[in-house]
Amino acid sequence: MNNYPSILLSDAVDQVASLPGIGRKTALRLVLHLLRQPNKDVEAFTGAITRLKQEVKYCRVCHTISDQEVCPICQSHSRDKHTVCVVENVQDVMSIENTGQYNGLYHVLGGIISPMDGVGPSDIEIDSLIKRVESGDIHEVILALPTTMEGDTTNFYIYRRLQNTTLHDTTPLKISQIARGVAIGNEIEYTDEITLGRSIVNRIEFKL
Amino acid sequence: MNNYPSILLSDAVDQVASLPGIGRKTALRLVLHLLRQPNKDVEAFTGAITRLKQEVKYCRVCHTISDQEVCPICQSHSRDKHTVCVVENVQDVMSIENTGQYNGLYHVLGGIISPMDGVGPSDIEIDSLIKRVESGDIHEVILALPTTMEGDTTNFYIYRRLQNTTLHDTTPLKISQIARGVAIGNEIEYTDEITLGRSIVNRIEFKL
Repeated sequence: MNNYPSILLSDAVDQVASLPGIGRKTALRLVLHLLRQPNKDVEAFTGAITRLKQEVKYCRVCHTISDQEVCPICQSHSRDKHTVCVVENVQDVMSIENTGQYNGLYHVLGGIISPMDGVGPSDIEIDSLIKRVESGDIHEVILALPTTMEGDTTNFYIYRRLQNTTLHDTTPLKISQIARGVAIGNEIEYTDEITLGRSIVNRIEFKL
Repeated sequence: MNNYPSILLSDAVDQVASLPGIGRKTALRLVLHLLRQPNKDVEAFTGAITRLKQEVKYCRVCHTISDQEVCPICQSHSRDKHTVCVVENVQDVMSIENTGQYNGLYHVLGGIISPMDGVGPSDIEIDSLIKRVESGDIHEVILALPTTMEGDTTNFYIYRRLQNTTLHDTTPLKISQIARGVAIGNEIEYTDEITLGRSIVNRIEFKL
């Protein structure tokens, strides 16, 4: 299907339609919107994407996106340097930061173990996590990976690699995972059976 | 809200979120997708948009997007040069072309008369339409504008300007508008009253 009045237009639509979740109709609408904007706005648009791609760095400690060699979170003096939260990707760091409930550091794996997709432990930042835990002053590793089969596999793999690690004072490293259960605001009757079953098995003491 | 780990990222997200119908969450997802692509793919993406914006031309006859001074539709020898279909914008040309039911020429107004938005007859390509009809060999003008108040106003304005135009052989110019009625595949009971009412008033003879 190429009945656009211009190859330039058709190229631009193809490119925008290659983005995930953007169909050709939406792509056409977006491209024609850009075409109606002043030149400088379109330059700002393409420029911001080009600069991001060319100049972005990844923190060499936690592997999140950063403007510097070491990201502001890893550099911060007000954060708890004894706790590391392990996440799949950069979005997860932002989501957890947005909660305002966490003040420790992060470790971005850049993926999770998924044999179906050919992703093994050596393809993601697990070795650097182990090294970081062994060499650093870390007391607790929080696993905040997706609650899927792949997330569970990755949790299990990291747990096995870290379970015998001890701190300098010989107390064992604490390894935890985020709570799973009925989401806040959800009705019990509409919660899926696996989640509900787990939330009963893993019930916690009621405290006021 | 700016809790992105990088100003570069935040700039790119702002730019993508400025597109119509793209929220900040979607923008972030799209930007992080682009960030994961190879450099050359991102260059192809921004390049296609830049080239479109810088190099696109508008046909000097019908004002649709074109690679050349005069668009392929206006240049085509196989099209009916006596019929001009008046549309609001470039998308409408593509939509009508996609139907495969029309073989005449087009005239893109680049907007419709809308006093609320401060768009008057002189802000859109109406004068050039009149000139084109008066100087050309056009037998019929088909008004294919939106079936809204603004579309009706524009239809009426163009009709008034053209109603006394006669062809070289003194027969009057034919002015038509696209049929309005119950959309194909729609149930009568779910059709809005105005559309249904009009479709009864403007009923046409049943022919086999």
